[in-house]
Amino acid sequence: MADTVWARFVGGEHGIWQTRSIRAVCGEPLTHVARVAHEETAGRPTTAAAGAWSLAGCRSHGRYATRDEKAALVRVEAGLGRSEATRAALIPITKSEAWWSLAQDERRAVFEERSRHGAIGLAFLPAIARRLYHGRDHGEVFDFLTWFEYAPEHESAFDDLVAALRETEEWRYVVREVDIRLERAPA
Amino acid sequence: MADTVWARFVGGEHGIWQTRSIRAVCGEPLTHVARVAHEETAGRPTTAAAGAWSLAGCRSHGRYATRDEKAALVRVEAGLGRSEATRAALIPITKSEAWWSLAQDERRAVFEERSRHGAIGLAFLPAIARRLYHGRDHGEVFDFLTWFEYAPEHESAFDDLVAALRETEEWRYVVREVDIRLERAPA
Repeated sequence: MADTVWARFVGGEHGIWQTRSIRAVCGEPLTHVARVAHEETAGRPTTAAAGAWSLAGCRSHGRYATRDEKAALVRVEAGLGRSEATRAALIPITKSEAWWSLAQDERRAVFEERSRHGAIGLAFLPAIARRLYHGRDHGEVFDFLTWFEYAPEHESAFDDLVAALRETEEWRYVVREVDIRLERAPA
Repeated sequence: MADTVWARFVGGEHGIWQTRSIRAVCGEPLTHVARVAHEETAGRPTTAAAGAWSLAGCRSHGRYATRDEKAALVRVEAGLGRSEATRAALIPITKSEAWWSLAQDERRAVFEERSRHGAIGLAFLPAIARRLYHGRDHGEVFDFLTWFEYAPEHESAFDDLVAALRETEEWRYVVREVDIRLERAPA
């Protein structure tokens, strides 16, 4: 099989992303760092990371989106690395054991039918490009690493997006969340 | 977070499970070995395995069962390690990229509404105890390692079970499957 695509975010002195703020939304915070490096690799990173912290996760298939929802996302989503997307956010999230012990239909009902997670996200595309990495089954500290890139004029829209999600029933299952805002360092 | 539970199956000269047969159902076969060792560990195994082959995967939450289906399974399922369950089967399986590119509702529809995977399995409980390990997102050779334990008198029922599953629409997405039958070595 093809290697799984992994991402590692290393918080320290290196990387193109300068830290604007790091805030613990709930649970343990992460140490403040000057910069965050974001690298994708084929397979899990095996080298040691030089930084105050290092978070990793892998890309995978979607767990909740239906065919129509997935098609709608694909139709309008933007890719990472757009030149105008000089702002970014890294939001690592861990959910409770109560979440993970729910059955698939219960998780789907909370995620979409009652929290409208996908629908909320869709409303902010293509301004906000996003990528999800999975850590839970790999013994990583966070269940998910969520990554967003957008232009400075969409920062307030991004604030609205995360505020809307944090009001949902789904978010009652979030036990740790750190909100890290970044901007691309001048070349 | 708690360590993920991993299993490793090592095919070679060691372990309590003696090989009765190893048969490639589709795709590449596995080398014939005299014995298979099954060990569960907290976290991914890091030591080298001494054997002709070594397959690993981790336990995780269910991906398709609804609350009612999960409750029905939990109500009747048997645990591993029953003294009367002297036969076992290890069936590693990999599905195609076409499967993994389906959306959640499409996979669920194939898995249960059209292939009745859970319902077929349920009919054979508690005679056949089973456990599923996930390998795909970990870059393992097989997407799944499926493990079954049963008494000798249920071997033909087990044959019926796997035959029924191999007739399903879901199985059209299976690109590699090896059927390894084992029996517990005399103490």
